[in-house]
Amino acid sequence: MSRRSYDQYCAVARALDAVGERWSLLIVRELLGGPRRYTDLHADLPGVSTDILAARLKQLEGEGLAVRRKLERPASATVYELTERGAELRPVIEALGAWGLGALGEQRPTDAVREHWYTARSAAVIG
Amino acid sequence: MSRRSYDQYCAVARALDAVGERWSLLIVRELLGGPRRYTDLHADLPGVSTDILAARLKQLEGEGLAVRRKLERPASATVYELTERGAELRPVIEALGAWGLGALGEQRPTDAVREHWYTARSAAVIG
Repeated sequence: MSRRSYDQYCAVARALDAVGERWSLLIVRELLGGPRRYTDLHADLPGVSTDILAARLKQLEGEGLAVRRKLERPASATVYELTERGAELRPVIEALGAWGLGALGEQRPTDAVREHWYTARSAAVIG
Repeated sequence: MSRRSYDQYCAVARALDAVGERWSLLIVRELLGGPRRYTDLHADLPGVSTDILAARLKQLEGEGLAVRRKLERPASATVYELTERGAELRPVIEALGAWGLGALGEQRPTDAVREHWYTARSAAVIG
C-alpha cells in the first residue's frame, strides 16, 4: 500500500497526499452517489485490481474520508460510504469533471460506460 | 513514462488520464504562476526525480496543456508555460487547495515550504 507524502506545506499537496494516488478520486466519485458494496465498486471500476481497491479503501478509511458499515439484516452486506469530510470532495470531482468534459469526445472502443456516471453527477457538472 | 488510461467514458476519468499521475497537478500548480525554467521547477518540487519531472512535462506537452518556449536573448533560457487549456485547470487546483486547507495543520519538520505557495494562489483559495 503506497503512502508517499509530497512533504510540502501546501494545501494542494496535502489534498493530493490524501487522494492523489491512482484510483482514489474515482472511488470517491463512486461513493458520492451513496453507500456501495465492495463488489459493486469493483464492478464499476474496471481495470482496478482487487488489491489496489482494498488498499485505497483502507487509505480512505485511514484518512477519515470513508467508513465501512455493516447493514442490518436482511441485507447483511458491508458497504463503504463517505464521511462528511469525504463528501466535501464533491467540488474537486466536479471541477475535474467540468474540465475533463472538454476532452471527452467520442466513446472509444476500449471505454467502459456506466449509466450512473451521467446522471446526478454530470447534471451537476454540466448544469 | 507511464501513460495508463482508466478507459472509462467519464469526464472525471478523462481528466485524471491527463493529470492524474503523481506530480502532474503540482507541476500545474507551479506553472499557474507563470512560465518557469526546468531548474526552477525542479527546485520547487523537492522530492521529484529529474526523470519523472521530465516525463510529466513531456506528457503535459503531449496533452496540449503546456508548451516549451525559448526566451529571446539576453535571457536565452527555455521555459515551460501553460496553454490556455492547461490554465483552465485553475479551478481544479483551487478546489483541491480549498479542501486540503482543512487538513493542513501545523508545518511538519519534513515539509518543504515555498513563499509563492501562499501568495496569489492561496488568496484565491481562501478569499
